[in-house]
Amino acid sequence: MPFFDAASGSPLHPVARQALLASLEDGWADPGKLYREGRKARVLLDAAREAVADAMGCRADEVRFTSSGTRAVQVGMAGVLEGRRRVGGHLIVSSVEHSSVLHMAERWGGEVTQVPVGRLGAVGVEAYREALRADTALACLQDANHEVGTLQPVAEVAEVCGDVPLLVDAAQSLGWGAVQEGWSVLTGSARKWGGPAGVGVLAVRKGVRFAPREDEEFANLPAIVAAAASLRAVRAEAAAEAVRVRELTARIRERVARVVPDVEVVGDPERRVPGIVTFSCLYVDGETLLHELDREGFAVSSGSSCTSDTLTPSHVLKAMGVLSEGNVRVSLPTGVAEADVERFLDVLPGVVAGVREKLGAEVAPVQGTVVDSLGKRCPIPVIELAKAIKGVPVGTVVTVLADDEAARLDIPAWCEMTGNEYVGAEGTAYQVRRVR
Amino acid sequence: MPFFDAASGSPLHPVARQALLASLEDGWADPGKLYREGRKARVLLDAAREAVADAMGCRADEVRFTSSGTRAVQVGMAGVLEGRRRVGGHLIVSSVEHSSVLHMAERWGGEVTQVPVGRLGAVGVEAYREALRADTALACLQDANHEVGTLQPVAEVAEVCGDVPLLVDAAQSLGWGAVQEGWSVLTGSARKWGGPAGVGVLAVRKGVRFAPREDEEFANLPAIVAAAASLRAVRAEAAAEAVRVRELTARIRERVARVVPDVEVVGDPERRVPGIVTFSCLYVDGETLLHELDREGFAVSSGSSCTSDTLTPSHVLKAMGVLSEGNVRVSLPTGVAEADVERFLDVLPGVVAGVREKLGAEVAPVQGTVVDSLGKRCPIPVIELAKAIKGVPVGTVVTVLADDEAARLDIPAWCEMTGNEYVGAEGTAYQVRRVR
Repeated sequence: MPFFDAASGSPLHPVARQALLASLEDGWADPGKLYREGRKARVLLDAAREAVADAMGCRADEVRFTSSGTRAVQVGMAGVLEGRRRVGGHLIVSSVEHSSVLHMAERWGGEVTQVPVGRLGAVGVEAYREALRADTALACLQDANHEVGTLQPVAEVAEVCGDVPLLVDAAQSLGWGAVQEGWSVLTGSARKWGGPAGVGVLAVRKGVRFAPREDEEFANLPAIVAAAASLRAVRAEAAAEAVRVRELTARIRERVARVVPDVEVVGDPERRVPGIVTFSCLYVDGETLLHELDREGFAVSSGSSCTSDTLTPSHVLKAMGVLSEGNVRVSLPTGVAEADVERFLDVLPGVVAGVREKLGAEVAPVQGTVVDSLGKRCPIPVIELAKAIKGVPVGTVVTVLADDEAARLDIPAWCEMTGNEYVGAEGTAYQVRRVR
Repeated sequence: MPFFDAASGSPLHPVARQALLASLEDGWADPGKLYREGRKARVLLDAAREAVADAMGCRADEVRFTSSGTRAVQVGMAGVLEGRRRVGGHLIVSSVEHSSVLHMAERWGGEVTQVPVGRLGAVGVEAYREALRADTALACLQDANHEVGTLQPVAEVAEVCGDVPLLVDAAQSLGWGAVQEGWSVLTGSARKWGGPAGVGVLAVRKGVRFAPREDEEFANLPAIVAAAASLRAVRAEAAAEAVRVRELTARIRERVARVVPDVEVVGDPERRVPGIVTFSCLYVDGETLLHELDREGFAVSSGSSCTSDTLTPSHVLKAMGVLSEGNVRVSLPTGVAEADVERFLDVLPGVVAGVREKLGAEVAPVQGTVVDSLGKRCPIPVIELAKAIKGVPVGTVVTVLADDEAARLDIPAWCEMTGNEYVGAEGTAYQVRRVR
């Protein structure tokens, strides 16, 4: 089954599997122990640290392992915030960071500035400059966005940050080759590069004041060894694969926009990681779409609110101000077969049309200028709006009552996509004027 | 090589290895995802949770997995302390808890009462009763001590705790069969029962107010599945193995006391887990002893201060008031060969004698009533004291100047073992009267 959700986590790379098996023999003991088994484990740990440092572009003694990518972010942020307590408690994050960064920011007792992004998902360098203060302890900016693939201007932001350390979450890019320059603290997650789940990496440049609160070194040796082996292997293939996979996601971007009606392809078409492409389909329910694609054999992810694993639309799509309805993220793994991508593009239009038919999105216009969608979930409010607009003369204003959180994003997005005028919202009442 | 450090962590159980390999195929995806791979992973996760709940004696929905045993303790303690914030901020721990519990207690902002232990390592039930207050949010008590094997009176302490939740760290006993009754929160670590490193388990009884701060469920599926499979396997063997291994540790207790001169076997001879036996040897340096045993092929652990992985003597030995010098913990794994234990007992007296000879512990008495051991590390101050005592008439007081932390424990212990009188200490000056 074609697995197009590599950005969530990939199956174990064959090299990682091999390394895992080998180190189950030699690396099960506590590397802090003095006896033979402990010393063997220590040797393996040191070698893994060297390999990861090499991939991250830093010294081995700047690297530590954690129990997950999320944990790497938590330890990294907490360590710098604590270490630089004297400077102050101000924290800067972008509004499209991974939830691990945003959750830490929420918990952080000090002041937090969230830097907004543009419609393509990138922050402005000037916005970081303006956010900086004398008491800024830490700034965070991902290398590439995990939902839409957009690369952030890391080097430029690092430049304006000056002495303020920049924590760069490189979860989506470490496996693809070079991470952008300029970071002070770098985090990553092994399952994103074909390593085992449950291994994170954290690098802290010498010179950064860092006071971690961790009690003990994370030392799940077999998993660490497998993670390091896999990172080395995928990076060896990365240069060639990046070009090929980038061409495939470019093909998806272009074709989806052409063959699926009422679709918005999001994210930066140029400055992006090779493997990710994201689009949203009007009048489609994300959960049903995922199920139908699963039935066709494709595993993808969604940032729609109407999937069982989320209650609100993706904060990334929200920050970008783009449609979240019927959202699909395709993230291709290295080694993906071109034929699978072609088959995906072949079945997608039919799948989307099928879901729309089920939801009655294509039926006749209805009469009335007030649509009561209270208590109804995405994409129903937008479907009912579309039907009502069809039933009124050009120039008429239709009011939609909708309390689903997604409506705030999707009704303006619908207007922009269909060329109608978004008049505004008051509470749960949205006003739209028919233009065409 | 006979591995006698099972209490630190065992090699992967063959059943765990098999389960790990199988679930690398079917369990690598995120169990929160809607597609086929995610659903497969969810099924595996649910089955593992059922198996662990069965072993812990609770309901599956009371069990959660964490990235280590230490993490299970951290999440468990923080969750109850936060959940019962309204009751108050008072915390009770025993003085011989695992460092994960004591570190959390140190960090905890509220008041902490440490309950002392007796010379055998067990707390008194009355001491817990006295420690309880109206604002006590949580009490912690291990099921069995990790360094000396002594079982704690968990059921009795739970009884006096009443409505105050009792967190029981069962890291050392979960693999051996039944944990004592009475816990509200139970923690364990998979590497102690032949599961992979990097998996902890935490059970919280329904009804306990619990407010964890964790962002995400720990879902390293292959490791969790392996941990559950291994737990089931070792517990199936536990009843028979417990009797056999207990007989072997009893043999070590008896024989060491008989064949090694100047030795103290510590911990409760009756109320204890089957696999652990601990003793301390006068006039021996822990690190050298470990190295010599390693050369003979035996991997053991030590709570002495004079090993490279610790700077102070074990807090457990300290709390018990027993000798820490030349400390050795033997922790036998299930399936241990009787012949290996016999060989250990055969080589041990020669190894201890050899280390003593190297340190010059057996040479002639020296003259003088003041011994200057400032700046010298354990076991040198005690060796110099023994020599000086040999050189003075009975009734004379010898003063030892020693600034090694271990002296505070080991000089009184030496007096008790040799039948001399410990007069007392002022700062770094210890006074001992020759009695025999």
